[in-house]
Amino acid sequence: MRTRERVHAAVCTVLLERGRDGLSVDHLAEASGVSRSTIYRTWPDLAGLTCEVFAELMTRDPLRLSDDPVRALQEYLGDYARRLNDPVYLAVLMAIIEGSAHDLEFAAAHRKAFSQTRSRAGSIVRKLQREGRIDTELSVAQCVEDIVAPFLYRRLITQQLISLNQVNQAHRLLLQRWDTRGVSR
Amino acid sequence: MRTRERVHAAVCTVLLERGRDGLSVDHLAEASGVSRSTIYRTWPDLAGLTCEVFAELMTRDPLRLSDDPVRALQEYLGDYARRLNDPVYLAVLMAIIEGSAHDLEFAAAHRKAFSQTRSRAGSIVRKLQREGRIDTELSVAQCVEDIVAPFLYRRLITQQLISLNQVNQAHRLLLQRWDTRGVSR
Repeated sequence: MRTRERVHAAVCTVLLERGRDGLSVDHLAEASGVSRSTIYRTWPDLAGLTCEVFAELMTRDPLRLSDDPVRALQEYLGDYARRLNDPVYLAVLMAIIEGSAHDLEFAAAHRKAFSQTRSRAGSIVRKLQREGRIDTELSVAQCVEDIVAPFLYRRLITQQLISLNQVNQAHRLLLQRWDTRGVSR
Repeated sequence: MRTRERVHAAVCTVLLERGRDGLSVDHLAEASGVSRSTIYRTWPDLAGLTCEVFAELMTRDPLRLSDDPVRALQEYLGDYARRLNDPVYLAVLMAIIEGSAHDLEFAAAHRKAFSQTRSRAGSIVRKLQREGRIDTELSVAQCVEDIVAPFLYRRLITQQLISLNQVNQAHRLLLQRWDTRGVSR
């Protein structure tokens, strides 16, 4: 493995085992077998390194979504659950969220990552509206929040894994809630 | 101020300014003016100290909810938004969430805090169901998630403050979504 890969893997290991608290050059050197001086020289800033790792996790195994937006929504939810269920992804995500309150580099990585997520989810919602599958009056931002907030809450707060059954339930619930045309109100 | 109050205030300041990363006895001594040895002796474990501070923030300014569950839901949402909007509360919350993945004491504090939140929100939902204001078939756990997940997502991920207008919108949206009796499906 190349130095970069070894250090990236070490960031994941350290964040998983110790959290952001334990992210130090000493721990990274120990976990990667790369010398402290090389780590210092290549990544003068550990926030930048963590963001690099997160960007890589975000773009790994990109999902090709179906043309049918109803199916695409299910695929998106399944992929999102799969990523959140991965303890390494979750540990790096938490480090980014926690770090972004105090560190400009973390905050920039955070904004970039979540605007990507939102824009993918948003295009599914807009396609559902164009094809008349859901209420066209709904705010896209509200629908994106409906898609992403619950799973994030489950993983961060109730700390449960998201099952395939829950993915299917969420898919049904969203389509039902977004289709308000039958509501007599 | 007593030692405990000064150190508690210092935990808030340090977490707000530096994050969990910066939570060290040195920084706490500097921010509180309490000696390092006293801090070491009184709080051998900084996780325990952080949890103590969080428990205090959770129970500060307890809200008396109205008997009418529709109004109680609005009060609950408003109070929840107020707490999440407080940068100190959010910083301590993030430290607890991040820490609970790696530290048993954090994890226990986390579970306790969120089971309290869930049980308060759950009793509002059950009362709404008993009084026939919303569908009685709905899962209480699902409704609790509907209440708490969106604001948490907004503060942690989109990093926006929650306005009074958004509290009112959320209140209307929840009641509308939970009242599925008029849906012709």
